[in-house]
Amino acid sequence: MTKSSRKDLPKPLAYTISIPFDRRLFRHDIAGSMAHARMLGKQGIISETEARAICDGLKSIQEEIEGGAFPFKDELEDIHMNIEARLHDVIGDVAGKLHTARSRNDQIALDMRLFVKEAIEGAVKGLQRFQEALLEQAGTGIDIIMPGYTHLQRAQPVLLAHHLLAYFEMAQRDVERFRDCRKRTDVLPLGSGALAGVTYPIDRESVARDLGFARVGRNSMDSVSDRDFVVEYHSAACITMLHLSRLSEELIIWSSEEFGFVTLDPDYTTGSSIMPQKRNPDVAELARGKTGRVYGNLVSLLTTLKALPLAYNKDLQEDKEGLFDTVDTLSATLEVMAGMVRTMKVEGDKTRAAAEAGIYSGILATDLADYLASRGLSFRQAHKAVKELVDYAADRGLALNKLTIEDYKRFSPLFEDDVFSITVESSIAARNTPGGTAPEQVRRALSAAREMLRAGNG
Amino acid sequence: MTKSSRKDLPKPLAYTISIPFDRRLFRHDIAGSMAHARMLGKQGIISETEARAICDGLKSIQEEIEGGAFPFKDELEDIHMNIEARLHDVIGDVAGKLHTARSRNDQIALDMRLFVKEAIEGAVKGLQRFQEALLEQAGTGIDIIMPGYTHLQRAQPVLLAHHLLAYFEMAQRDVERFRDCRKRTDVLPLGSGALAGVTYPIDRESVARDLGFARVGRNSMDSVSDRDFVVEYHSAACITMLHLSRLSEELIIWSSEEFGFVTLDPDYTTGSSIMPQKRNPDVAELARGKTGRVYGNLVSLLTTLKALPLAYNKDLQEDKEGLFDTVDTLSATLEVMAGMVRTMKVEGDKTRAAAEAGIYSGILATDLADYLASRGLSFRQAHKAVKELVDYAADRGLALNKLTIEDYKRFSPLFEDDVFSITVESSIAARNTPGGTAPEQVRRALSAAREMLRAGNG
Amino acid sequence: MTKSSRKDLPKPLAYTISIPFDRRLFRHDIAGSMAHARMLGKQGIISETEARAICDGLKSIQEEIEGGAFPFKDELEDIHMNIEARLHDVIGDVAGKLHTARSRNDQIALDMRLFVKEAIEGAVKGLQRFQEALLEQAGTGIDIIMPGYTHLQRAQPVLLAHHLLAYFEMAQRDVERFRDCRKRTDVLPLGSGALAGVTYPIDRESVARDLGFARVGRNSMDSVSDRDFVVEYHSAACITMLHLSRLSEELIIWSSEEFGFVTLDPDYTTGSSIMPQKRNPDVAELARGKTGRVYGNLVSLLTTLKALPLAYNKDLQEDKEGLFDTVDTLSATLEVMAGMVRTMKVEGDKTRAAAEAGIYSGILATDLADYLASRGLSFRQAHKAVKELVDYAADRGLALNKLTIEDYKRFSPLFEDDVFSITVESSIAARNTPGGTAPEQVRRALSAAREMLRAGNG
Amino acid sequence: MTKSSRKDLPKPLAYTISIPFDRRLFRHDIAGSMAHARMLGKQGIISETEARAICDGLKSIQEEIEGGAFPFKDELEDIHMNIEARLHDVIGDVAGKLHTARSRNDQIALDMRLFVKEAIEGAVKGLQRFQEALLEQAGTGIDIIMPGYTHLQRAQPVLLAHHLLAYFEMAQRDVERFRDCRKRTDVLPLGSGALAGVTYPIDRESVARDLGFARVGRNSMDSVSDRDFVVEYHSAACITMLHLSRLSEELIIWSSEEFGFVTLDPDYTTGSSIMPQKRNPDVAELARGKTGRVYGNLVSLLTTLKALPLAYNKDLQEDKEGLFDTVDTLSATLEVMAGMVRTMKVEGDKTRAAAEAGIYSGILATDLADYLASRGLSFRQAHKAVKELVDYAADRGLALNKLTIEDYKRFSPLFEDDVFSITVESSIAARNTPGGTAPEQVRRALSAAREMLRAGNG
Repeated sequence: MTKSSRKDLPKPLAYTISIPFDRRLFRHDIAGSMAHARMLGKQGIISETEARAICDGLKSIQEEIEGGAFPFKDELEDIHMNIEARLHDVIGDVAGKLHTARSRNDQIALDMRLFVKEAIEGAVKGLQRFQEALLEQAGTGIDIIMPGYTHLQRAQPVLLAHHLLAYFEMAQRDVERFRDCRKRTDVLPLGSGALAGVTYPIDRESVARDLGFARVGRNSMDSVSDRDFVVEYHSAACITMLHLSRLSEELIIWSSEEFGFVTLDPDYTTGSSIMPQKRNPDVAELARGKTGRVYGNLVSLLTTLKALPLAYNKDLQEDKEGLFDTVDTLSATLEVMAGMVRTMKVEGDKTRAAAEAGIYSGILATDLADYLASRGLSFRQAHKAVKELVDYAADRGLALNKLTIEDYKRFSPLFEDDVFSITVESSIAARNTPGGTAPEQVRRALSAAREMLRAGNG
Repeated sequence: MTKSSRKDLPKPLAYTISIPFDRRLFRHDIAGSMAHARMLGKQGIISETEARAICDGLKSIQEEIEGGAFPFKDELEDIHMNIEARLHDVIGDVAGKLHTARSRNDQIALDMRLFVKEAIEGAVKGLQRFQEALLEQAGTGIDIIMPGYTHLQRAQPVLLAHHLLAYFEMAQRDVERFRDCRKRTDVLPLGSGALAGVTYPIDRESVARDLGFARVGRNSMDSVSDRDFVVEYHSAACITMLHLSRLSEELIIWSSEEFGFVTLDPDYTTGSSIMPQKRNPDVAELARGKTGRVYGNLVSLLTTLKALPLAYNKDLQEDKEGLFDTVDTLSATLEVMAGMVRTMKVEGDKTRAAAEAGIYSGILATDLADYLASRGLSFRQAHKAVKELVDYAADRGLALNKLTIEDYKRFSPLFEDDVFSITVESSIAARNTPGGTAPEQVRRALSAAREMLRAGNG
Repeated sequence: MTKSSRKDLPKPLAYTISIPFDRRLFRHDIAGSMAHARMLGKQGIISETEARAICDGLKSIQEEIEGGAFPFKDELEDIHMNIEARLHDVIGDVAGKLHTARSRNDQIALDMRLFVKEAIEGAVKGLQRFQEALLEQAGTGIDIIMPGYTHLQRAQPVLLAHHLLAYFEMAQRDVERFRDCRKRTDVLPLGSGALAGVTYPIDRESVARDLGFARVGRNSMDSVSDRDFVVEYHSAACITMLHLSRLSEELIIWSSEEFGFVTLDPDYTTGSSIMPQKRNPDVAELARGKTGRVYGNLVSLLTTLKALPLAYNKDLQEDKEGLFDTVDTLSATLEVMAGMVRTMKVEGDKTRAAAEAGIYSGILATDLADYLASRGLSFRQAHKAVKELVDYAADRGLALNKLTIEDYKRFSPLFEDDVFSITVESSIAARNTPGGTAPEQVRRALSAAREMLRAGNG
Repeated sequence: MTKSSRKDLPKPLAYTISIPFDRRLFRHDIAGSMAHARMLGKQGIISETEARAICDGLKSIQEEIEGGAFPFKDELEDIHMNIEARLHDVIGDVAGKLHTARSRNDQIALDMRLFVKEAIEGAVKGLQRFQEALLEQAGTGIDIIMPGYTHLQRAQPVLLAHHLLAYFEMAQRDVERFRDCRKRTDVLPLGSGALAGVTYPIDRESVARDLGFARVGRNSMDSVSDRDFVVEYHSAACITMLHLSRLSEELIIWSSEEFGFVTLDPDYTTGSSIMPQKRNPDVAELARGKTGRVYGNLVSLLTTLKALPLAYNKDLQEDKEGLFDTVDTLSATLEVMAGMVRTMKVEGDKTRAAAEAGIYSGILATDLADYLASRGLSFRQAHKAVKELVDYAADRGLALNKLTIEDYKRFSPLFEDDVFSITVESSIAARNTPGGTAPEQVRRALSAAREMLRAGNG
């Protein structure tokens, strides 16, 4: 089949066929059909010989498709009919027995669930590789100091590793979310027939076991019309892309000349057709941009499903292309983000210099307030005193560590000489409670993260 | 505070304040502050006496707010500062010690998590009451027969109870999804400070226990910038609304004069300003319409969060109004849908008549094909034969059960007199495998559903 | 190029290339390049001979692509570089002069604008054909009476033609909206260079004339980063799809056995793999479902564009696939909807019977209230009296026209025998002001609509 | 009415009432009712005296509402019934005549159109004030040089005024888009009745003139079910917010310590509860964040409208709250953005230094390539030569203007001493074609922009 062949069909048929995209489900469709045929044979609904013939035929068809030799036909509309028709070519009339006790409605629901289960597996693996890259980069630069930002203003100094571990946490939640989605995907719809169940003595539990499903669907009408698991997959993918968009944004800002915090590996930047000097962070920009695509796919499906009466409606056919697109986008984006993080060079001198330069603007001001608070001022009063001190320094164009102790004492008599021992390093070290940026905490968090990944909990 | 007072503020301040809406978090804010103060006292960061004074003051403030006597001030910007300023009024300078080892960044993250945990509880309860209503209606009409539809065309006869139980299953998944979301919400952010942790010897585990959190956040930068749990709550709410929109659509169609399957309780319909006869299913329509609102709130938040650099950014303030709106919409919609389902009258005569009338158009055709298939034809051949039979009957304007056995035999010699024993009832009874619409299966499903609800798993 | 070749590229490159989809812009790209080359020649920036060589080369390349013989190369990333490299193969080093005074940033902006202008043309034509189909169907059944619905409840009788003309109006607004969008698309970006303009003595006005643009862009930074016209195209497409989804919904409901108002042409329905009798309105369902797809594409682009700093960012590459998808979806959906509307058979007996049956439930109640109001009661009192009358009839299970004049007089002494002359026909005829459903008005509206279409204003 | 009173209503009623939000339409509702009453009087449908009594009553009610003295009642459901009931209190039974020849369906459609027309006016004014602020800031710093960016990498030097004028262009398109939307809003729905027109000899044209509408609706069913104008308003608002989000992002990045390009007026920044030194660009962040809100409102409405059958459905009630929210958000955001732009201080020394520093990384590289191209090299060859030159300089850590002419000649013999006359200034001056950043072009653009604004075309 080529795209153009679609144009030769009568318009309405060209509009409704799905074979140009649902062919991607051929493996899932064949696996489902084989399990179904085996069960039919075992239950005596068809003979064991017939079941075997069907399975053998399907196997050869799978090879045909994988080898690129399968004659896809648009006029057969979908992957199910393409395969069944071909099965008839291959094994003759007995092929007509495969669709016993089954409808395309429960068949496509099955294919979709098998596909989403695989997609979840893929997402989890992609996330874990991304986590590994974060840990690798964090481990390499465990001592690198940088300004921590809020509102893109320097706030307090942090370890770069601490910053990267924030993304590890996000990815960790993503993994768990995908796994939760898997629970609701892992339910066999086959046996629901068109909508009401089937009239044959089928054994759904055995099909579930055969295909690796945790349980069978409890209500046939729900089973053929439910696409919650696809929505939920999309929702999880949106949150992952959201996380990657945040990191992308940071990498783009960090690789600007003004920040200069990272140098991306040349493989992850591209040049310009007109400006010979450019090193554009295209990969990060595209990852950020593709967030919109995944959000849009979620909105598409939510919209499509709104207000559909039970049970199956043709609208549901629209569940596929967006899903395929999200799966591919997510997988590719996780892969390039992992590669970009692993290969980027953090410019530790610059990040440190920026943190030190922050002393001018007050990156240690919180520590000064804490200093006063720990000497008895209420935090509010301490905050007020330091704010005045910071303004005083700013008016004079002086960094905080260039003031004299007398300057300090103007704002609180509690200041003593030891105030000068507050440095970027001491500030970081002082945040030494669980979750904080102190080296001790960060090392511990790094170990724990490695352990989680190793234990397959990542 | 009144809305108008907001207008008196300088424009930029009027733009940035959140007190008009975040005041709704006062209970969560106060609970968090009390737990924080108790911990500060226990750890000796402030004195036990100070901690007690703070807690007492906060308690009295909570009563003030609940009593409507609290002087909200727009110029104090948010709920945190309104309460802290008032605390100063009430207990004096010691109030300034409350904000020790804390930032508004981790404070608001805490408030939001406490609120979402409550919202999840509310959603689960609302879903369970909706499930109860479904079971009640399904149980009442356990023998009611109706046409099952695909593509809004009569497909196969089903029990109404089976149809309603499909919604039970959807709600059941919703409950599980909200509970999964809860796991990721149930993490204490307090102790993260502005972004980097705090310099005081705090005990985060004790605060977590005090407030009922399962664990503490592992990374301070993540903790103050993470709103995944809000996105996830919205995503779960979207799927629930999607389910309710499907039911709403069905109830609207069913209560049309053409279908006439249900009569909604007058409390759930309204009249017209001009057409005296109208009984409009306004509640169902509005529920369907409000689906858009909840979808929109999800899109808002996803958009807002896209590409934000770490850690806290003011954009995050936009996480609240949409959340409040979704929580209120979901709760109100679940409540009215439960009431509407419980009180509606199913017109069993009409649903049954529609199923019987379906014999004309072929509602039993699948059963006829199964009849032939069970007598040895392959299902494909059986399907073909029955299709011709159905067309033959349609051309003659005859219902299938008005044909003679000779008519039947034209299309297959396998037809015998017992083909006339295929009826709407027999069709339903024949779908007797797990998940099917046979009375035996539906009764079992109903029992299982009741058991699930009773066991609190609902 | 095949899809698989993409996989052979290094991952980051495979991630960033656009040639798999932007190849669709080859005609626009070549047209732009030829206009650019001609201008460079005319301005003496390159020689006229060089310009001619370039144009000839480009022309042959266009033929190559159209003939399927062009060797697309993924490693050349995009359509621009594929063509420029091939131009070098074909005409040698002079090909390198084409990119003088140009950047890919203004080049792709140009291609997109040319493409969107064409897409708008296509949308307008598709809408006009849809309008023609509506007028054809409306004209055929100009006297067909049906119930008009609000809340899917029978409200007042209307002419089917009036109902169909509502969709004509929607399409008319759509046409105007697309044309308004065209105004903002019809602006030449070429000459903006990478972002700041170019250093050559170019003549932008002549390029604009050559390519048929109304004017040149006024600000180079805006010109290379503006994708408003794409967003606006998507927005207009969303509204059109929204309209088509409303009509689809109605056709689906109308072709249910319960309504039976229309019989869709068999080309627009499909059968079932299991249920031999089915005639599913697949095309209408799919049109309704594809609404989600177009909405999603809008959301994608809006999300992608959010918060991008000036000028060009790679995120913008994500503007294409969603656009292509929306253009194709819109075009195909308009075409099948036009065909479905033109070929469907309205079952006038059934629609009329439903309107008459509505007398039972009160479809003429508004007319009765108007009757009383025109005899002096205030409308509110008239409304109240008729409401009681309707309830009275309903309690007795009587249609309004089966009540006696005495029954009527119980509720108002103003009722006289002439109340029985209120019929479905008289009700329709009475709504004889502009925009109303009276046959006179509808005939006039139909003529006016035909005139609008003919005048090309459609 | 207070929020709590809503809770006292029966749940379904509390769910369906709209008075808590549609009260905002009271002016529009009253204006519409007065015009309607005047027409009824003029046409003799009611007496002139009755018409006058109604208008007087409505006028007094308007004053009551504006004075805060109106007794809103939740149980009266909506603004229409609240006003009509109150009218009855004020003028007695004649109030019941107001609703003659009208339905709430066309009444609310009217109110919405009046409101949206006003909202469009407001948006246009807000945009114009924003444009003025841009021109003011651009005019002040007409000579300020800064790096122009693509991919957030320094690309070519530009004038700040040129950069700001890009936003002027965006706003200009926004103005035009809103005005186009106005054309489709400016249509009178009144006279459509519930859905089918009315039975009275009304004069729609006179009502249209009275209320300032350009024309009357051509189809009653369309008129009561059409909310396209609201969707279109939202779409336009989304694009405006998108523009503001881009500017916000730039201001946030520019006010980081690393860039330091602007100092925001203190009114537009806020402090931190914990970090005494902070000057956060909260207003810009919030404007960026609120983009999500406006996007979400669009999605909500699109979703709500999807697949609604004709004519009015209660779902349409959901058109209001999102609209009000978008109108308020847009208006407030435009206002603060205008203020922020007008009051911000551009740090011209820093922007210029950044441009000059760009020489190191190659900000003049395009000019060098153009230099070679204008001396006969094809642009591709020139680009290649300069790329090598830039890499050469980078390897040696030298700025391009610190290389010797011999260095230059290594890469092309075409380089002469005059290459050193290429400077940041000359680069800017050279881009002297329409739309370019040369001072001459920018001054001209500034004048033209001022002229457009003055002429009311802004």
